[in-house]
Amino acid sequence: MSRVIFKKLVTVEEAIKILHNYIKPRSPGIEEVKITEAYGRILGENIIARIDLPPFSRAIVDGYAVKAIDTSFASEVNPVKLKVVGKVTAGEDSLLEINEKECIEIDTGAIIPKGADAVVRVEDVLIEEGYAIVKNSVGKGSGLATLGSDVYHGQFIMSEGDELTAEKIGVLAGLGYDKVKVFLKPKIAIFSIGNELTEPGLELKASKIYDVNQYSIGALVKKSGCEPIYLGIKKDNLEEIREGLIKGLEIADAIIISGGTSTGSSDLAYKVFDELGSPGLIVHGIAAKPGKPTIIAVVNDVPIFGLPGFPVSALIIYDLIVDPFLRQMAKKKPEVKKKIKAILSIRYLSERGRREYLPVFLKRSERGWMAIPIFGGSGAIASLSSADGILEIPENVELIEKGERVKIRLFSEKISDIIAVGDLSPISQVILDRLRKIGVKVREEFRGLEHGLTCMRDEIADLLVTCIPKGKEVRYETKIFHKIKKIRSFTMDMVWAFYGDEISSGSTFILPKIGSGLRNYAEDKIKSMVKDFDLIEVWTYDAVMDLIQKRRSLIALLPLCIATKHDFNFIDAFQAKVNYFIRKDFLVTKIGKRLTKIMESEETIQILSSMLGIYMG
Amino acid sequence: MSRVIFKKLVTVEEAIKILHNYIKPRSPGIEEVKITEAYGRILGENIIARIDLPPFSRAIVDGYAVKAIDTSFASEVNPVKLKVVGKVTAGEDSLLEINEKECIEIDTGAIIPKGADAVVRVEDVLIEEGYAIVKNSVGKGSGLATLGSDVYHGQFIMSEGDELTAEKIGVLAGLGYDKVKVFLKPKIAIFSIGNELTEPGLELKASKIYDVNQYSIGALVKKSGCEPIYLGIKKDNLEEIREGLIKGLEIADAIIISGGTSTGSSDLAYKVFDELGSPGLIVHGIAAKPGKPTIIAVVNDVPIFGLPGFPVSALIIYDLIVDPFLRQMAKKKPEVKKKIKAILSIRYLSERGRREYLPVFLKRSERGWMAIPIFGGSGAIASLSSADGILEIPENVELIEKGERVKIRLFSEKISDIIAVGDLSPISQVILDRLRKIGVKVREEFRGLEHGLTCMRDEIADLLVTCIPKGKEVRYETKIFHKIKKIRSFTMDMVWAFYGDEISSGSTFILPKIGSGLRNYAEDKIKSMVKDFDLIEVWTYDAVMDLIQKRRSLIALLPLCIATKHDFNFIDAFQAKVNYFIRKDFLVTKIGKRLTKIMESEETIQILSSMLGIYMG
Repeated sequence: MSRVIFKKLVTVEEAIKILHNYIKPRSPGIEEVKITEAYGRILGENIIARIDLPPFSRAIVDGYAVKAIDTSFASEVNPVKLKVVGKVTAGEDSLLEINEKECIEIDTGAIIPKGADAVVRVEDVLIEEGYAIVKNSVGKGSGLATLGSDVYHGQFIMSEGDELTAEKIGVLAGLGYDKVKVFLKPKIAIFSIGNELTEPGLELKASKIYDVNQYSIGALVKKSGCEPIYLGIKKDNLEEIREGLIKGLEIADAIIISGGTSTGSSDLAYKVFDELGSPGLIVHGIAAKPGKPTIIAVVNDVPIFGLPGFPVSALIIYDLIVDPFLRQMAKKKPEVKKKIKAILSIRYLSERGRREYLPVFLKRSERGWMAIPIFGGSGAIASLSSADGILEIPENVELIEKGERVKIRLFSEKISDIIAVGDLSPISQVILDRLRKIGVKVREEFRGLEHGLTCMRDEIADLLVTCIPKGKEVRYETKIFHKIKKIRSFTMDMVWAFYGDEISSGSTFILPKIGSGLRNYAEDKIKSMVKDFDLIEVWTYDAVMDLIQKRRSLIALLPLCIATKHDFNFIDAFQAKVNYFIRKDFLVTKIGKRLTKIMESEETIQILSSMLGIYMG
Repeated sequence: MSRVIFKKLVTVEEAIKILHNYIKPRSPGIEEVKITEAYGRILGENIIARIDLPPFSRAIVDGYAVKAIDTSFASEVNPVKLKVVGKVTAGEDSLLEINEKECIEIDTGAIIPKGADAVVRVEDVLIEEGYAIVKNSVGKGSGLATLGSDVYHGQFIMSEGDELTAEKIGVLAGLGYDKVKVFLKPKIAIFSIGNELTEPGLELKASKIYDVNQYSIGALVKKSGCEPIYLGIKKDNLEEIREGLIKGLEIADAIIISGGTSTGSSDLAYKVFDELGSPGLIVHGIAAKPGKPTIIAVVNDVPIFGLPGFPVSALIIYDLIVDPFLRQMAKKKPEVKKKIKAILSIRYLSERGRREYLPVFLKRSERGWMAIPIFGGSGAIASLSSADGILEIPENVELIEKGERVKIRLFSEKISDIIAVGDLSPISQVILDRLRKIGVKVREEFRGLEHGLTCMRDEIADLLVTCIPKGKEVRYETKIFHKIKKIRSFTMDMVWAFYGDEISSGSTFILPKIGSGLRNYAEDKIKSMVKDFDLIEVWTYDAVMDLIQKRRSLIALLPLCIATKHDFNFIDAFQAKVNYFIRKDFLVTKIGKRLTKIMESEETIQILSSMLGIYMG
């Protein structure tokens, strides 16, 4: 066995420094694009105005071009009479000129005639027999914009490296640019390594998982201002990895791989780099959690980033090390990450000597923002996708107390309005869907009753759903009774559903993970029917349906309405009571009130009874 | 003459309401795209997990799969010995099983063998003759992730309308999606109206300007999540406008035009709408400054937005009315505009009865942010492109006092670090370029000495450049002497440069707009040379060069170094002194120190003397 142990872990900062010692981020060059294609691109030249804007003095109102001095002392009682000697419209190159006591009719945007130095608004003029009667005086320069007053010829307008916004593109157009030089988007080759990986869209065989990293990293590469090239999945063997790297070196400005970089016996990628060119491997392992199995290599001036295979680790390390480097290659400004202060929802022990990056989500509390760690683990991409930010715990911190103030680096502002926990119930989906439809951001974490009660006690969650055999509900709810209020109750008839003729001993039963109360009760019920049986547990009714359609011998616990809809045979099991509890302090908030309103609405009740056959109480 | 007067101006809010009464923003539909193309798109379906993640219980560390109970009480002194009965690697569908006192070597990501309920890390195990020596106990579930622990089958994962981030795309891949349904980008036809407009890239004839709006609006349309279709420039006549609208109605989901909607005698667009279909014109004029000549029409369920021709007005109205509507069509979330509090730098009078939107830029002051109105006027796109935000002044406010607290709606964070004012000088470009290169955000407003002195007095600007005949400089600088400090002085030899043989009476002289002190002095000098002459003024030395190359009969005032470089004949004019003043309170800031350092550096002096032949003092 040849396991590689990471010998010299470096910090994130050291890794970046080592990389920069070997290679500086360099733009692959400049291209010229049409200004209609330039939005969001990075300017590759300084822009110095090559004309004045406006390019001539022009009227900025509709009216009459005059000599301002002729209107001196004009008033309602003492108007000035100016002879109209012509008209000039926008776009017309007029040779007209005015002398004393004359004026010229002029449109907005038209060139100011020689001799004129102001424009009187059309609203302030009366026309009588070829004369303009002006009833108020105007100052020199009034009603017009002089040549170069917006931009002067030679003015420095934009810097190389500016991101082209809509306004900047407008300025370029105004200055006559139809094309503009922008930095080429660096090409980044990406592949994933692992025997367990399957391309999304293909069938998932046992022990395989779908490849996540290629796609999430590809999207991040776009966000960093570069262009991803997807090279697919490589098996965990030297030949495929080498082949991928050689291809990447040929076509790309940088390479990002993931997986195959841990200490696992079949992790081989790191061996290949030194063969391909110098300096080869320059960083092998990072003192960060997650992110330890990160490697960096440089081969023939091309940087190669080897990220951990776990999706969360890969994204966090991308953010810390790869993104800044790629942005510098793309000449894109660093992303500004906002930080906010929050209190930590739990007591947290960290590993000494490794910096830890802990994804958290945020919720409002009485003491301000509360940061709640997400413990999906490094493999849990879905958990990360719902995270609001990252808590960075320094190497020398071993413990953060519950309620301690911490700083959270925000991803973006997608903070949940309502967090629902407890038991799964098809009823909840109907209610939460209605909330989502009116724009309420719902986070759902139906991970069972114990988890739900803890979350409600710690004021992390707002809505608790319990699904318990009728008559047995008291036991759980008293624990946190003073903090929560029951706002709604439904009753569901549960049945044993099956395709065959009868339920016989030795059958396999399938139970949705519907809370331990219901589960134990269901198991007792099964025991009372047959003496010998197997049990399978799955998370939702959907998953139950999925399994039962594949293996028709199974017997499933389902709501009556679902069983009848699918043409199963069934026998009654028991009645389940679905209760909705809301935190008392949440009840008075705007979202709390909306939730209550939806729960109580006739419409919701109708949808529920027609869909699920539930009844109230 | 047939000028149209806007009869019933409505507020921005009323205009939006009227529009919504006639037509609701509607997505043009759904398309399916590959997940590699989905970044930034808007999800067109709800995503309910169709598998568990992970799809099986798997190891999250390299090590040995065990029964946790077998490791109870294991310690350094009392290790547990477990028989290694096999090995399972990631991606391998193993049928291995463990019984009591057995273990299986396992890689990260591999399926947990039947019978095992924990994984001991490889670091915590010694292998001896086919046995694993375990020196610490592990709990059930340690070192593994159970089936569905990240996502459970049937879990609600993403909402229709979610913007697809990198993390979300990762989740989709992990769930096996290779394609995903997204909302189609609405197609928006855009054209500009005006006889004065020229396409960028073409030669600019007298009295013409380049079209700005088509390009700035096109980029904004992309930002709103839609796809612009550029229909070009239409002349201000009924036929061309009608033709453009008919084309737009055929191919687009909405139309945006600009110009041709004011009260000017040749402004015709509004007449066309009613002909094309009902309800036709629904809003004609908005009580906003800028933005009055805004119209909205609806023809056959297609909204048509007629924006003012002035670029700044067009962009402000786009932001207020068009962007929210297009985002709803594209199902994109509204843009979150941050607001900050600032003090206004001047006393400002506003027009009663019209809401005013005043572009401002921001700078730090002792009392917090200071908002400085940008008075480029509605035609001034370059001024807008350097604005940091907008001050909204309600209809009923006529006056805001200097120093009064106001709320600014921020565009983005591109706030200037340093603002330079005063006279133009080629020396400044060298110095400011060096600042820009090290990432300092420089805003330059070289609009002459008077403007510069005012800005310095009001603490709006940080760096003042004066360019004055040697020996005449005292007069200006004493005004604000207590606030500023001279940090550098350069002397430039100025000459009269020309192509011909001599300077004769009746010649035309060309002067750069280099501050009134220099200008008047220069004019006196000319008078002492010839008795009859013409004067042309331009903004920069570049513009001087441009003119003189076109009309070789001109005589130009230029720095000696430039004249000699271009092979002109010349005679001495006078010496000009270029002084750099910095605000005393700015001098002590980080940026102030950097500026001083650059001004004083040997490198700068060398570049300057080799480029411009200047010398110090």
